Parts: sequence; structure tokens; C-alpha cells
Amino acid sequence: MAGVEHEVTRNKQVTLKHYVSGFPKESDMNVVTSSISLNVPQGSKDTPLNGFGVAKVVDSTHPNYEKGDLVWGFTGWEEYSLVTAPEVLIKIQHIDVPLSYYAGILGMPGMTAYGGFYEVCSPKKGEYVYVSAASGAVGQLVGQFAKLVGCYVVGSAGSKEKVNLLTSKFGFDGAFNYKEEPDLDAALKRYFPEGIDIYFENVGGKMLDAVLLNMRLRGRIAVCGMISQYNLDKPEGVHNLMQVVGKRIRLEGFGASDYYHLYSKYTDFVIPFIKEGKINYVEDVAEGIESAPAALVGLFSGKNIGKQLVVVDCK
Amino acid sequence: MAGVEHEVTRNKQVTLKHYVSGFPKESDMNVVTSSISLNVPQGSKDTPLNGFGVAKVVDSTHPNYEKGDLVWGFTGWEEYSLVTAPEVLIKIQHIDVPLSYYAGILGMPGMTAYGGFYEVCSPKKGEYVYVSAASGAVGQLVGQFAKLVGCYVVGSAGSKEKVNLLTSKFGFDGAFNYKEEPDLDAALKRYFPEGIDIYFENVGGKMLDAVLLNMRLRGRIAVCGMISQYNLDKPEGVHNLMQVVGKRIRLEGFGASDYYHLYSKYTDFVIPFIKEGKINYVEDVAEGIESAPAALVGLFSGKNIGKQLVVVDCK
Repeated sequence: MAGVEHEVTRNKQVTLKHYVSGFPKESDMNVVTSSISLNVPQGSKDTPLNGFGVAKVVDSTHPNYEKGDLVWGFTGWEEYSLVTAPEVLIKIQHIDVPLSYYAGILGMPGMTAYGGFYEVCSPKKGEYVYVSAASGAVGQLVGQFAKLVGCYVVGSAGSKEKVNLLTSKFGFDGAFNYKEEPDLDAALKRYFPEGIDIYFENVGGKMLDAVLLNMRLRGRIAVCGMISQYNLDKPEGVHNLMQVVGKRIRLEGFGASDYYHLYSKYTDFVIPFIKEGKINYVEDVAEGIESAPAALVGLFSGKNIGKQLVVVDCK
Repeated sequence: MAGVEHEVTRNKQVTLKHYVSGFPKESDMNVVTSSISLNVPQGSKDTPLNGFGVAKVVDSTHPNYEKGDLVWGFTGWEEYSLVTAPEVLIKIQHIDVPLSYYAGILGMPGMTAYGGFYEVCSPKKGEYVYVSAASGAVGQLVGQFAKLVGCYVVGSAGSKEKVNLLTSKFGFDGAFNYKEEPDLDAALKRYFPEGIDIYFENVGGKMLDAVLLNMRLRGRIAVCGMISQYNLDKPEGVHNLMQVVGKRIRLEGFGASDYYHLYSKYTDFVIPFIKEGKINYVEDVAEGIESAPAALVGLFSGKNIGKQLVVVDCK
């Protein structure tokens, strides 16, 4: 490799100042500017945060990837990333849909909704489905998938605007603002007088306790996340777990990566629905990597509406 | 039916004086003596407690049952019961084993252990299995079934005598007294340095929280019961449920009745082991229906060693 001319460019990155416990603040993060060689190999000075993104290959020594390829997968919060394990990236095959969809409906959140709902929950027509954080990156899809199966689906979210989206844009049969319900058990009994067959769990804590009281016999709870608990020093206690015995409830944790082997089956399934406008996907787009810290912080107060994206302006 | 001569006999029953919340006391129950006709039909004055028992048919108008048949199933806590729905009874086919086994290893507790361990947990050779309340009616069987599969199995119980039974009589690889462990998480880490694949849950509360911290990827928790929680006004909170997401844990409630269709398969499986002495079953026998209230109360303080039975002296 000696003698290879390296193109060096500016590389803005989002880094953590220190280990963060509790709720992250913008001031916990830095947006730093370093430089990076656009040829493999090179080294990076700071370690940025990481997450799922959509990217274009600018250089590759791996036989499966070449310059210009579009990929999605686990990347750094930076303008340019050196990827040393390219098997964490999936090549983008369909470019007749918005590329941002590969960070959402056609990426990790899409696989989360697909695997979690169809594989973990085994839904049947006519079943009663409840989705929390229902307007989020995953929840909005679970609701629409549930309608495709012929389920009755109700979602909850944290603002009037989000609640309206659930019924107007995503076809939920009902929706409520959990912040306006002092008694979550009573709210669920209103929307599910017959009880809940499937709960797609995104929030944890008090909501899970209320749901357990309203589950039906042989109900399923797919645990995708528990965002209400992530930033607490000590997670809230869940008191109603005894319900799982009498009601034969199955509660199961999962992640999108468990279902990546189904990815092409999923895209074959979902892309036609996207093109026909039968499945909608709402994104909340922040512009520029400098906006990433605020976008992350906003997730925990529910500021985003739909899938939170950050557009990094890379050439 | 007019003109049929009715044989009337004394019938001792255990009844509740009032609705009981919290831990039951002997003084919450009465042992009453009423009379009952031994011919069908008749009516009973008081409603006794009910539970699983072994009985002999003294009269029947149902074509599947005749006088002298031995049965097990859901019966009253009384010397004689009128059974109006005989489909809750199973006829005893094998009488070359102790009849009391049909209230234990060959009855509901046996089906609980069999269904809960083999069907819910899908154990594989070499997996790490933990059983709480391990010397009880169900736990002692789960441990022995786990050894048959080739699992490593550790149990916990609440006295030195019970802990000794686990390793000496039931073949557990390890055992500990949970009452002597101020830090359950540390105790589990000692016995399961590699973590737990399968937890057979009988107790709930703090134990479940400690187990969640020690579960392995794709671990399974079969929730049979949560005896530590039954008599609390408000169940303890379980704080570590977030573990189910990252570790893809499946937590599932079940009951013996889910598996009664496997009953003859189970007896074919287990009776040879019983006869060869390869599976042991320890019973704690109280004599006479008058001892039933104390026997029930003793369950909640762990006074019993093995399956608690009450022998009702009926002719």
C-alpha cells in the first residue's frame, strides 16, 4: 500500500464528553471536527457515538463493496466512517424509494416491527393489539402490520398531534394520549373491553403493569424496548407479573438482528405496500450532524414525531 | 328417582369462615361435620375448599364411572364429594404405585413439572437449569427431569434439610438455602458462573429479579407460580425486566391443565422411572382431614418437606 496518495478530508463527528447516566443532555456531547483519509486503511482520533445510518461507499478493500455502493447498517455519528467489519452493512438494492427509509421502514426499525410482530406475536385475524409509543419508528409500522392481518389495533402516544396521526395516517382503530390518562388500567379497559391479545411493548414501567391486568388468555407481549426505564437510576418495579401464570401469557424480548435472515422476504413484502401508498412512514428530519445531539435528547422527551433522522450532508 | 333409598353418612368438610386476604391462618377455616347421601343426586349444605385429590367412586349416574373406580382430580376438602362435572376427574389406570402419587408425581404437580419443563422450556443437554422451591411438589420433579436430559441443575429451598434432599435424594448438581443468602444475585453467580439457560419459577419477587440478572442469551423462564407473592397486599416490584430485551428472554406462564392431553404419554414416560427407583418423590403426609387447615397454612411458611398431602380416612 506504500505510495498510495490519500485524500484527506474534514470529518465532523458527535462524541460523548463522558459516560452518561440518567437522561442525556446536549451538553454531554461534542460535535468535533477531525480529519480522515478517504482511502482504506486509516485511523480515527475520537470515537463517535454510533447507530444505524445510510451511507455511500467512498473506498473499499472488501470484495463485496465498491465505491459508490449504497449501504445501511451500524455506522458512526460522523460524516465519514471507517468500517472494519462490513458484514454489519447491508447493500441497498431498491433505490426507487426514499433512501432515508433504510434508516427506518426498510432498515432496523422495519425489521424490528416485522420480526417482533409477525414472528414473536404470531397474530391472528380479529385479535386485539395494543402498541405503546405507537407513532415512533417501530410503533407506526406495527399498527399498520396489525391492520394488514385484520387485527383491531389501538395505540398510545404522548401528544395530541401524535395521537391524531395514529388514526388519520396509520389506520389505527383507536388511539389515546397516555399523558392525559391518570388511570392507565381504566384507559385500556375503555379501548379493550374484551382485553388485549397482543401487546407490542416499547415503554415498560407503569404501562406494562396496566397492560398485564388487561391481557387475555394466551396473550403475547413482544418486548421491543422499555424507553420509560432507560434513564432511571433504578427501574420502576412491575407488580402485576403474577398475571402471566393464570393467563398463560408469553412475554418475550427480541431484537431486529434476530430476523435479518428474513430481510429480503421483508422487503419483497413491504416495498409494494409502500409504492401503493398502503403503508405510510412518517419521519422527523433534523438537518446537519450538528443537530444530532438535540435530536437524541428529544427522543427521551418524545419531541420527535415519527422516526427521528439526522441528515448528514456528505458529498 | 323417586323412591330410591338413600344411604346417609357423616361428612367432615373444611370450610372457610370468611374471605381470606393475606396469609391464611388455621382460625380462618372450620372443620365442620355435615351429612351427605351416598347416592346421586343430593345437595351439600356448606361449600368446602377444593383442590386436587385421589378418591374412590361410591355411586355414579355417569356412564364412564362406576362404583369402586379410583379417580384423581379436582375435589372438595371433605370426606365425600358430589361431583357434578366428572370430566374434571381422571380414572386411575395404574394401581401398582402408591395411590397418593396421583395427588403428586402422577397428578397435577407431575403434569405441571412435565409440561412446564419439557414443553415450555425446551431443554437441551448441557444447559444450565435453576429451580426455586426446588424440594416442593413440582420442583423436585423438575430437577430430576432436568438431569434426565443431561442438564446442570441447581435448586434453592428454605431449610438445611430441604437443601440436603436436593442433592442427596433428587440428584441436583448443587443446592442452596435462599434464607442464608443476603445477596441472591451473588449466590446465583456462585452456582452459575456461566449464567442460567432455564429458570423454573415458583417463587417470584426478589428471586426473579436476581435470576433476570443471571439469565443467558435466549434463556427461558417458565412461570409456574410465585408463592412469595400470593399473600401480599401489593406484590413486590420486579425491577430487572429490561434484561429480557438484550438477552432475548422468553418468560411464559402455564398451568398443568394446558398439558392434560399429554397425560398418558407422561405416565408411560414416568412410571418406569418410578418403578426402577430412578425418580424419587418425597411426600409430607398429614393424617386426617382435621389436619388440613394446618397443612395449608404450613405451605406458606415452608413447613412441608416435599409434596404436602392430607390423608382423609374414608371407607
